[in-house]
Amino acid sequence: MEGIKDRVAIIGMGCTKFGERWDVDGLDLLVEACYEAYEDAGIGPNDIQAAWLGTVGSFSTGQPLAQALKLNYIPITRVENACATATDAFRNACYAVAAGIYDIALAAGVEKLKDSGFTGLALARPPSTEVEPAVPPPAQFAFAATRYFHHYGIPYEEGKRILAQIAVKNHHNGALHPKAHLRREITVEQALKAPMIAWPLGLFDCCGVSDGAAAAIITRPDIARSMGRDHILVKGLGVAVGGMQGLLLDDYDFVHFPENLAAAQRAYEESGIRNPRQEIDLAEVHDCFTITELIIYEDLGFSPRGKAREDVEAGSFTVGEGDLPVNPDGGLKCFGHPIGASGLRMIYEVYNQLLGRAGPRQLKKADIGITHNLGGRPGSFTASVAVFGRPS
Amino acid sequence: MEGIKDRVAIIGMGCTKFGERWDVDGLDLLVEACYEAYEDAGIGPNDIQAAWLGTVGSFSTGQPLAQALKLNYIPITRVENACATATDAFRNACYAVAAGIYDIALAAGVEKLKDSGFTGLALARPPSTEVEPAVPPPAQFAFAATRYFHHYGIPYEEGKRILAQIAVKNHHNGALHPKAHLRREITVEQALKAPMIAWPLGLFDCCGVSDGAAAAIITRPDIARSMGRDHILVKGLGVAVGGMQGLLLDDYDFVHFPENLAAAQRAYEESGIRNPRQEIDLAEVHDCFTITELIIYEDLGFSPRGKAREDVEAGSFTVGEGDLPVNPDGGLKCFGHPIGASGLRMIYEVYNQLLGRAGPRQLKKADIGITHNLGGRPGSFTASVAVFGRPS
Repeated sequence: MEGIKDRVAIIGMGCTKFGERWDVDGLDLLVEACYEAYEDAGIGPNDIQAAWLGTVGSFSTGQPLAQALKLNYIPITRVENACATATDAFRNACYAVAAGIYDIALAAGVEKLKDSGFTGLALARPPSTEVEPAVPPPAQFAFAATRYFHHYGIPYEEGKRILAQIAVKNHHNGALHPKAHLRREITVEQALKAPMIAWPLGLFDCCGVSDGAAAAIITRPDIARSMGRDHILVKGLGVAVGGMQGLLLDDYDFVHFPENLAAAQRAYEESGIRNPRQEIDLAEVHDCFTITELIIYEDLGFSPRGKAREDVEAGSFTVGEGDLPVNPDGGLKCFGHPIGASGLRMIYEVYNQLLGRAGPRQLKKADIGITHNLGGRPGSFTASVAVFGRPS
Repeated sequence: MEGIKDRVAIIGMGCTKFGERWDVDGLDLLVEACYEAYEDAGIGPNDIQAAWLGTVGSFSTGQPLAQALKLNYIPITRVENACATATDAFRNACYAVAAGIYDIALAAGVEKLKDSGFTGLALARPPSTEVEPAVPPPAQFAFAATRYFHHYGIPYEEGKRILAQIAVKNHHNGALHPKAHLRREITVEQALKAPMIAWPLGLFDCCGVSDGAAAAIITRPDIARSMGRDHILVKGLGVAVGGMQGLLLDDYDFVHFPENLAAAQRAYEESGIRNPRQEIDLAEVHDCFTITELIIYEDLGFSPRGKAREDVEAGSFTVGEGDLPVNPDGGLKCFGHPIGASGLRMIYEVYNQLLGRAGPRQLKKADIGITHNLGGRPGSFTASVAVFGRPS
């Protein structure tokens, strides 16, 4: 098998303002994101030969994208894959373009979460043999936090402070992004004093619930060059799905997530990345909870096992201070997590950073960036890792 | 752009018994279909490098396939695209294999419809801006029947008799298939006297509601040859999605479905098919209602506009009599329509016919076969056409 490296280029992207978008519906959000992407790519709707729509509960087929964008009679595939939905829609689009089936394709992701109540989609699932977890996500990741603290002998107060520093970092970054939902800085003190959600995770350890959409227009690099468009290249794509039901397994350790390792392994192999900490300039990772981001640092090879807290305290992942800024746009913490949109929202930040268009958030060095998603439940996660680079 | 022609081979397929499968759940159905496919391909679970799961309402992510088959940490994408769900899952798998990303991939589709009540999934959808149609599918296609009769000046009794002949044909074929749900012949008289469902469509003009699963294992043709496996080749894949809301449009004609034309055009172009009636040996088409099959004959180029009834009366699509047998396995009429499985169930029949394994249903000439799906609503259908051939 061969990898995806340098076979697909992103020539345009769009992203809506994320937040409580009571003013619009899911179709409006798709129009907002996709028309920004069209303009950025210098193309129009008639140039799109095929599309992929990522959404978890807002729509069931590819048809709403056709309706929103007035795309008649092209192929549109709808992909749903837990919190990796948008990235997997993007990934499938990449394979079709890499195979030469289409020259220009669109990958879009959208979710309206506010309309379906504070819990988002969890209670709106159709009946199936997938029983809703008795242990909802904050509690699942609270298990990870307590276990991580126990496993590495971290006292509660110290653990809480490490997690708070991650929240403070992401809120600082998000405050600078005009499209973020929660645009305000917080202090460690505020995070520590916030109401408890699932012990030891407090309010600021949890991401928000938001509406949003994002979109990417992709083509082959030779076409991107002939069009004369600024673009970035896809370097690696990895997805891994776990088949166990982790909460039921006595030996599930909750201090690492094997799906992250498998997805990263594939994406790094395709990209030729051997030393992630040295070679990656920025990462957008799935900070659904602060403890998730902490564990991700280790799963993705940014920090040795058990040592991520030292990197947090050293500011290694902080914009301006560290060598590997993580979530420079504010992450799920500030954008919330409109599930079908999040992966493409992350790619949007990497795209802008690599092209030098990130404004007040622009990093000095941004040659290689990655995105990461993790969804589902412990033992049966879906993880995705995507690596992007600038054309040489 | 280049097509998919001869770049992907199917080396194994499986299909469950379709019907009222109260004895098993969706995971069991996946095991049943996929293990038949493994055995047929001469491989085991560890050979699968990536998978695609098509399902409409039975599951929401790719994870249940990992759980059912104990596939740990490979990529699994879940695709949903109305009645073309299974075919679109298969199509995305084909693009990844054609791009060289994976050597061996699995596409599986499943649906448990009986568990969710007689109407299947319609009432189990999560809340969204997609309002459930006030006009349910039987009534939507009843519009097509009444309009078709009117447009071509066909008296009611004559029209009903044409539709009945399609049902009789499919029931005859299905009676010979051990995996069909409704295995019995019917007469034209029975069809004409059956209870009305949505005038002029009676009970035997409508497909059944069933549980089932089907699966395909694909690879590149060079690998299939080196493995020494019997296989068929993918010749063309077309999908087309309509962006209108047809029932709201005054000028929607209901005597052709443009999504069918666009999907067939792409699939025929990729395959090099110029005269479908002459070049295609068998077709599995989406006979959700008998009138749908009648219109499909014209949309796919089997019959000139308005002339499909003459071909029906001449037996052109009947096994043993006609030059282009349609639905030799009994179609949706006899298999029912477990939505996420149907497209792969159709491919299963084409696969077995092309390999000469169709037993009592075996056609004398079976070199080129196609499958077709049509789902959604008039004006906003998703149509798929897939073309398969034997290696030369």
